[in-house]
Amino acid sequence: MFEKIALVGIGLIGSSLARVIAREKLARHVSISTRSPQTLARAQELGLGHSYSTSAAEAVKDADLVIVSVPVGSSGAVAEEIAPALKSGAIVTDVGSTKGSVIAQMSPHMPAHVHFIPGHPLAGTEKSGPDAGFADLFQNRWCIFTPLPGTDPAALAKLSEFWLRCGSNIDTMDPDHHDMVLAIVSHLPHIIAYNIVGTADDLQTVTKSEVIKYSASGFRDFTRLAASDPTMWRDVCLHNKDAILEMLARFSEDLASLQRAIRWGDGEKLFDMFTRTRAVRRSIIDAGQEIDAPDFGRQAMVHPEKQA
Amino acid sequence: MFEKIALVGIGLIGSSLARVIAREKLARHVSISTRSPQTLARAQELGLGHSYSTSAAEAVKDADLVIVSVPVGSSGAVAEEIAPALKSGAIVTDVGSTKGSVIAQMSPHMPAHVHFIPGHPLAGTEKSGPDAGFADLFQNRWCIFTPLPGTDPAALAKLSEFWLRCGSNIDTMDPDHHDMVLAIVSHLPHIIAYNIVGTADDLQTVTKSEVIKYSASGFRDFTRLAASDPTMWRDVCLHNKDAILEMLARFSEDLASLQRAIRWGDGEKLFDMFTRTRAVRRSIIDAGQEIDAPDFGRQAMVHPEKQA
Repeated sequence: MFEKIALVGIGLIGSSLARVIAREKLARHVSISTRSPQTLARAQELGLGHSYSTSAAEAVKDADLVIVSVPVGSSGAVAEEIAPALKSGAIVTDVGSTKGSVIAQMSPHMPAHVHFIPGHPLAGTEKSGPDAGFADLFQNRWCIFTPLPGTDPAALAKLSEFWLRCGSNIDTMDPDHHDMVLAIVSHLPHIIAYNIVGTADDLQTVTKSEVIKYSASGFRDFTRLAASDPTMWRDVCLHNKDAILEMLARFSEDLASLQRAIRWGDGEKLFDMFTRTRAVRRSIIDAGQEIDAPDFGRQAMVHPEKQA
Repeated sequence: MFEKIALVGIGLIGSSLARVIAREKLARHVSISTRSPQTLARAQELGLGHSYSTSAAEAVKDADLVIVSVPVGSSGAVAEEIAPALKSGAIVTDVGSTKGSVIAQMSPHMPAHVHFIPGHPLAGTEKSGPDAGFADLFQNRWCIFTPLPGTDPAALAKLSEFWLRCGSNIDTMDPDHHDMVLAIVSHLPHIIAYNIVGTADDLQTVTKSEVIKYSASGFRDFTRLAASDPTMWRDVCLHNKDAILEMLARFSEDLASLQRAIRWGDGEKLFDMFTRTRAVRRSIIDAGQEIDAPDFGRQAMVHPEKQA
């Protein structure tokens, strides 16, 4: 599909792209770049690409498609570094979870002779690094583009085709709306998860070992998101500040009202609040974005031989 | 192990007990009771026991072991109803998620000639009702007893043996400490999950369909706990109020501080907060209370044929 694809950043997303590109034969040559020599060496051991360099500028030479998969706080620096080396007509895209800030950081550096199309595959796990990636990461997940005015339709079509062949569904959105949507479906959940795990970790009345031992009664569900890459999430918080603060404010207001219902023993209000949320999960399962197995199907994996 | 076990309440916990009792041959006769004729009929269709009655008093006659598995708000009424029918020397236990309140509700009704031993198996899924149960629910989970002063050691030993044969690990705790521990490992997580799903459900700027479509980016993890039985959770909130309000206060303080770090762009503080929480999940996996597969192993179940 492409002669040469350059992957700038080879963490969970970059290394998953490398694997699906190889499996689906989407490029003749894949060049890989990351600033960390250790990570680059590991990517090479894993045989994720055809050429390897700690210089992003070196990696993007002659590439028809450049995919920047770095923490959003680094996208400006990467754009500045690769700009002079970009081939004319190349498509440059990213995978960042914040789009307004990435556009503000990258587009000023993008030469007129390339197609810069901001993108965001809504896919990931709590693991990070080149070993964490797998070819199926994007399967049945959404990839959202936030194209700038005047984007070449042919370039957008080609990039869409690429993500479709990676297994994704495609969507297009205004950057501000994307950042608002992600603040509620992704950023707030991660921040809340980090926070509750932190709260539990700080307790004196309840020991840490008790929190660990009894975590299956609910707490452990939060520890997955709270095990995500700290650098990535620090940058997301710093680069989607307004939308995140808006969602945090709404969450806190709602929590105060729930807390009041508990303090005043308002059983009817609690019952109503706890009832309507069931339908949301049902819809997510029906939309094919979740499996319809109790406990995320975890029981089955813990004791396969013991299933009733 | 017992001649006759009476199960008062046949929801997720009661019906899981019925299944493991049958599999492990822990009783010659299992009598099942629930107030709802429909639920009782369903339990009978499923062949969960040997005798069925909508009267708890009827069901507990001649039982050596009585297990009350009802929402904690109903435990007082159940205790009052079964008290006159209890066999001398019988062991009476419960599975409630709040122990101080259950003891206060049940013990006044318990005759001197029975052994009342409050218990709490830390096991469950987001599903409820007699169809949701499975024999493996208690496997490798903890069952916590909060025995009253002067509890007969022989009776406690026999009840412990029962839960061990159901697959549980055993612990003993002071009721107040139990309620504090559960407030953080179970009650707060459920309340927070219900709250964030409610917040997302209320948004106007982001449509409900967008929340559903893009939920795999984090939000869906919260929807599992938020799909739990509303009656059970209403009662938990009403019956462990003090411990829950204490944990909610700590959570909100921590969230305010995290929110401040976001507002002021304190990247170092955010990075530190997001780093220490990783270790907690690692410990839970090492303790055998979670599986060591990315995304709760969900990917594997969504596309088994496509795994990289």
